[in-house]
Amino acid sequence: MQYFDHAASTCLYPEVLDFLRKSLNEDYANPNSLHLLGANLFKTIESERAYFLKTLNANQNDLFIFTSSATESNNTVIRGFDFHEGDVILYSKADHASITVPIENIAKEKNLILKIIKINKNGNIDLEEFEKLLDKNVKMVLLSQVNNQSGVASDISLIAKIIKDKSDAHVHVDAVQAYSKINCDMSANIDSASITSHKIGGPKGIAGLFLKKNHHIKPLLLGGGQEGGFRASTQPHSLIVAFAKASRISFSKSNDAYRRNQEIVENLKASLIKIAPSIKFPFNNTSPYILTFILPAIPSDVLLRHLEVKEFYLSSTSACSSKQKGFNPTLAALNIPEVFHKNVVRLSFNQDTSIDSVNLLQKAFAEVWKDLEFLTTK
Amino acid sequence: MQYFDHAASTCLYPEVLDFLRKSLNEDYANPNSLHLLGANLFKTIESERAYFLKTLNANQNDLFIFTSSATESNNTVIRGFDFHEGDVILYSKADHASITVPIENIAKEKNLILKIIKINKNGNIDLEEFEKLLDKNVKMVLLSQVNNQSGVASDISLIAKIIKDKSDAHVHVDAVQAYSKINCDMSANIDSASITSHKIGGPKGIAGLFLKKNHHIKPLLLGGGQEGGFRASTQPHSLIVAFAKASRISFSKSNDAYRRNQEIVENLKASLIKIAPSIKFPFNNTSPYILTFILPAIPSDVLLRHLEVKEFYLSSTSACSSKQKGFNPTLAALNIPEVFHKNVVRLSFNQDTSIDSVNLLQKAFAEVWKDLEFLTTK
Repeated sequence: MQYFDHAASTCLYPEVLDFLRKSLNEDYANPNSLHLLGANLFKTIESERAYFLKTLNANQNDLFIFTSSATESNNTVIRGFDFHEGDVILYSKADHASITVPIENIAKEKNLILKIIKINKNGNIDLEEFEKLLDKNVKMVLLSQVNNQSGVASDISLIAKIIKDKSDAHVHVDAVQAYSKINCDMSANIDSASITSHKIGGPKGIAGLFLKKNHHIKPLLLGGGQEGGFRASTQPHSLIVAFAKASRISFSKSNDAYRRNQEIVENLKASLIKIAPSIKFPFNNTSPYILTFILPAIPSDVLLRHLEVKEFYLSSTSACSSKQKGFNPTLAALNIPEVFHKNVVRLSFNQDTSIDSVNLLQKAFAEVWKDLEFLTTK
Repeated sequence: MQYFDHAASTCLYPEVLDFLRKSLNEDYANPNSLHLLGANLFKTIESERAYFLKTLNANQNDLFIFTSSATESNNTVIRGFDFHEGDVILYSKADHASITVPIENIAKEKNLILKIIKINKNGNIDLEEFEKLLDKNVKMVLLSQVNNQSGVASDISLIAKIIKDKSDAHVHVDAVQAYSKINCDMSANIDSASITSHKIGGPKGIAGLFLKKNHHIKPLLLGGGQEGGFRASTQPHSLIVAFAKASRISFSKSNDAYRRNQEIVENLKASLIKIAPSIKFPFNNTSPYILTFILPAIPSDVLLRHLEVKEFYLSSTSACSSKQKGFNPTLAALNIPEVFHKNVVRLSFNQDTSIDSVNLLQKAFAEVWKDLEFLTTK
C-alpha cells in the first residue's frame, strides 16, 4: 500500500504510538485532581505548553491552548473575537473550510464586511492588491501559512508586518500544513495561529491554538476553568504528550525531509510531464509536502480509482471539502478555471516518504495513464 | 497504589488500550478522504454512531454527535440554543461547571431568567417545588442524571415527563456519571444528553452528544461539514472506536458491578461509621459509584494528604472545581453548610473496584483517623 494523502492525515510515528500507549495506561488520572497523580499530569501539560510556545518562537508569556482540532482553534478565534457591525475582515476563499465557513457565517450574523484577498494565477497572495485593502477599519486578517490545496507557502511574517503597518487588525494564521515542516515564527505581528497533531505524526483529536498575550478572544468552551480559564474540558493528557512527542520527532527530521521532499517533487514533476505532457502544475512557491496538478481531459476521480485498485491512495482536494461536487470554491479562488475543477489531483507527502515509494507511484501512474490515454483524445 | 477517584477520570480497560493502539497504527487516514481507506473509516464511525444511539434507547433517526468532551457537549446545547430575552431556564448550581458556567454566562449576555431547581437536604430534587417552576416560559431545563459530587441519581424520565406536561422546554441531561453504569433511557421527553469516554474506561478527548431529531441547536464548530454538518473537525476515528469499545465492555459488566458496588458502599459506610462515629453521609438515592461524606473537624485536604502518603488517591470535590478555595457553590447547592465545605470527601469507584482494595482503604483510613483524631477533640 502506498499512501500519498498525508496532508489529509498522516500516520503516527512508531515512537509516538508506543509512548501514547504507555501514557494511556499509566496517566489516567484527571490533571485537575489535587492529589499527586493529578498534579503530576498537570505539571507535564504545563511543560508541554511551554515547549510548543518555544517551537513557535513565541514568548513564554503568550498563550498556547490545547484544543481538539485545528477547526476548533480557527473557530475559537473567529467566534471569540469582539466584532462590531461594519468591521472589515480580509480572508481568502482558498483557505480551509474551518476558516471560510465560520467567518462567512459570523459576517452575516453581525453585518461585517468581508473583503477577499486576491490570489494571483500562481496561487500566491497578490501583495500589491493586498496592501490596498488595508486600513484602520480592518479588524481581522485570516491567513494560511501553507494552503492545503495548492501547497503555496506564504511569507506570513512579511504579510503580518504589512498588515500591522496599516492597521491594528488581529492577524490569525492557519499553520496546520506548515508547523514543524517549514519555519513557523510567531514572534512578531501574529496574534494567533492554529496547529494540529494528526498532520505531523501524532494522534487525531488534539491540536493547539497560539494566542499572543493581551489578545481579545473570548473562550468557546466554558466550565471547569482548565487551560488558564480559556478552554474548559478535562485535558486529554496522553494526547497532549503524544502531540508534543510527534512535534519533537518532526522537528528533528525537518531540515533533511524538506530537502529530500524538494528533490522528490522536482523529479516527480519532470517524470509526470514526460508521461503526460498535457499535465499542468499551476502553483509556485509551494511547500515540498504538497504537489497539486491538473490533468486536462482526465477526471481525477477516474485516475484516483484506477490508482486505488493498485493500492495507491491520493486525493483531489482537501478531505474536509471532498464531498463537494462540481464547482469548487477553493479551486476557483486559486484561479483554476471551473472546467478543470474535476481534473485536479493532490499528492501529499510526509517526512518519511521515500524516493522508492514515489518511484512506484510514477510507475503506477504511467500504467494508468496508458490505460486512460484514450480519454484525452476524445 | 489504590485509586478512588474514578468519577474524575478512570483507567482504560486493557482491551481498549490494545484496540486503540492497533487502530491508531492502522486507521490513520482521514475519514473524509474519498479513497477506500477514508471511506472505510467513515463507515465504521457511522456504525458506532448507530451503536451509541441504541445504548441510549434512542431512535436511529436521532443524532449522536462525537465531540471532544462532555464540556463541549454541554456547551454546544447551551450556546447553540436560540434563546430570546426573558426566556426562563431551570438549572441547579449543584451541577457540573460545564453547565452552570455557560448558562450563567449566556443568561447575562441575553437577559435570560435563571431559576434554581431546589435540592432537598438529601441531595434530591424537590419535585413539588420543581413543578411550581414550570410553565410555558421555561425554554430549557438542565439536569444531571447522576450528580458528580453527591452521587445522587435522579429519575430523569420521570422529571422529563413532568417538564413536558407543563412546558415545551428543551430537556438536557448530563449523563456523564450515569452512562453504562445505570440505565440511560433517552427514548422519551429528553432532547439532548452528554456522555464521555474517560469516565467509562475509554480515552480522554472523545465524548458524545445525543440530540433528538428536530432539535433546535446550532453547531458550535463550523467548517468541513463533518458529523452531518453539525460538528466540523476531522473525526478522531481511533478515539471513537475506543470509546465504543469501552462502552461495550462497560455495559457487559454493568449489572454485576452495580450490585457489587452497592454492597461495597454499604459495607464501607458501616465500617467508616465504626471508625469515625462523627462521619455524616448526607445523600440518599445515590449511584453506587460515588460515596461522598463529611468528616466534621477534620479538613479533607489533611485526610487526603495522609492517605496519599500511603498511596491512596481520592478527592474532595469534582476535579473541575478542585481549585476553588473556601466556599463551594456546588456543596452549598447540595445543602452542605459552609462550615463543612472543607470537610467533604468523595470516594468514587469503577466497575473493577474490588472488595480487597476497599478493605485496604478501610484499614488505611483507620490508621490515618487514629493519627488525626486529636484534631477532632480540639
